[in-house]
This record gives sequence, C-alpha cells and structure tokens, in this order.
Amino acid sequence: MNSTTPYSLRPIGRVHSQLADRKDAPDQGSEGAPEAWIEIREEFKPAIDGIMAGSEIILLTWLHRSDRNTLQVHPRYNPGNPLKGVFATRAPDRPNPIGLHRVQVLEIAEPVRLKVSPLEALDGTPVIDIKPVLSGEH
Amino acid sequence: MNSTTPYSLRPIGRVHSQLADRKDAPDQGSEGAPEAWIEIREEFKPAIDGIMAGSEIILLTWLHRSDRNTLQVHPRYNPGNPLKGVFATRAPDRPNPIGLHRVQVLEIAEPVRLKVSPLEALDGTPVIDIKPVLSGEH
Repeated sequence: MNSTTPYSLRPIGRVHSQLADRKDAPDQGSEGAPEAWIEIREEFKPAIDGIMAGSEIILLTWLHRSDRNTLQVHPRYNPGNPLKGVFATRAPDRPNPIGLHRVQVLEIAEPVRLKVSPLEALDGTPVIDIKPVLSGEH
Repeated sequence: MNSTTPYSLRPIGRVHSQLADRKDAPDQGSEGAPEAWIEIREEFKPAIDGIMAGSEIILLTWLHRSDRNTLQVHPRYNPGNPLKGVFATRAPDRPNPIGLHRVQVLEIAEPVRLKVSPLEALDGTPVIDIKPVLSGEH
C-alpha cells in the first residue's frame, strides 16, 4: 500500500433536514442551524447501542456537494477576508469534504433514526461516522 | 447516486510517530500519547496556510489497521465492560475507521511538516483532513 492509495467510505446513514441549499446553511452549527433527523441504515443498528436521548455526539458527514480541488478560500466566502488554507478553516470545499458536527441527541425513533440539534448539514448529506464527545475534550 | 455509493478518500499526509503497534497506543490522546510529526503531501501545502505554531487543530486520520466489520465492542477492549455500539465509543474498529484527534501544533518545518502533541495514532497512519478548533466548541 503506497501513500496515494485511496480509501473507500460507506455511508452509514443520511441527514433529513429542511436545509435544501448551501446558501440556506449557516456557516457554523451554532448560528441558528435547525433540528434534523439522522436516518441510520438498518444494518448498522447494533452500532448505535449506548447512544441515548441527551447524549452529546460528534457526527461526521460527507459534504457531497463540495469542490475537492479547492485549497484556499476567503473565510466565510467573504471576498473581503484574505485567502486562507482550507485546513485552517471549516469551509466545506476541501480535498476530503468531511463535515464535523457536534450535536445533541433529542430523540431516538424506530427503526433507526436520531433527532439531533443543531445541525447545519444539507438534506441528503451522507453520514459516515458517529462518536461520543469525550469529557476530557471540554 | 444512491445511498450505498462509496466515497473515495485521498490521504493528504501521514503520521510519523514512535508508536509502532496498536498495543503501544493509549486509548485516548490525553493518556500519555507522545509528540508526532505530520508530513503533509507537497501538493496540499497551500491548504495549511494560516496554521501556526500554537494553533489547536483537529486531525482526522484513517485508522488503516482497523476491522471495519465490528459493530459492537467491549469498551477499551476490556471483556469486563458490557458490549456497546461502536458509535457510542471511540474504538478504532468501526465501519469507517476515522480517527479524531485534538492536538496542538508545536512547530512547522519545511517542506511541509507539523509537529503536534499529544497524538495516539500509529506510525504510518494516513491523515485525511485538518480543521481548526472552533472557540464556540469549548
């Protein structure tokens, strides 16, 4: 395996949200993003055992509408901000467009759906991983 | 595009660390993990512009030695702990083995290397994304 080997991700679920367009999405989760439902693929149901209403979790998503060739951006896409490397920003356009969202679980429903808030991800965004927030991180 | 479409990751760099084996790695970054160097692929150099010594960053890695079929684990791999879904743990074995590491940048060297601490990732682990820590998260 050499250093350019690509790795393949499998979506484990999908976002259902009222956010339909990138222009509707706030820049950060804390800026007025809505509640959303995460639909988990049924084959992964055993993997959410231990997540409860009230849990703080980190959702990793695949920002499928992003431009993967962008290496620098004007932060918040404001041309008045000087160009900055995408790894020093949370811009969705980046070589591997992974979204990182800290959310709270509000409700768990059958068959496998998690209601979370706040989430700035667009409707249809694939979810690729879920992790607990570690107390030592905060 | 349907819900099972796989997505392909490109490594943007690689970890150089004294941690050679999974048994050497502490379970969490804060438990005595060492310093490490992140070697960034030269083509992505423009993307780190804005990262400075002292910056707090989130490294996303691809835990390439993980088992992707594991859905439940005994937390910390201690058989005395009841089984739990991997999405409720930080276990490296999971459907998409993405590692999430909050580290501080200690030094930036030529051509493109970042010295960071603490990092529990094994030597050779691919790095797939870098994000700034947001002040609102802490």
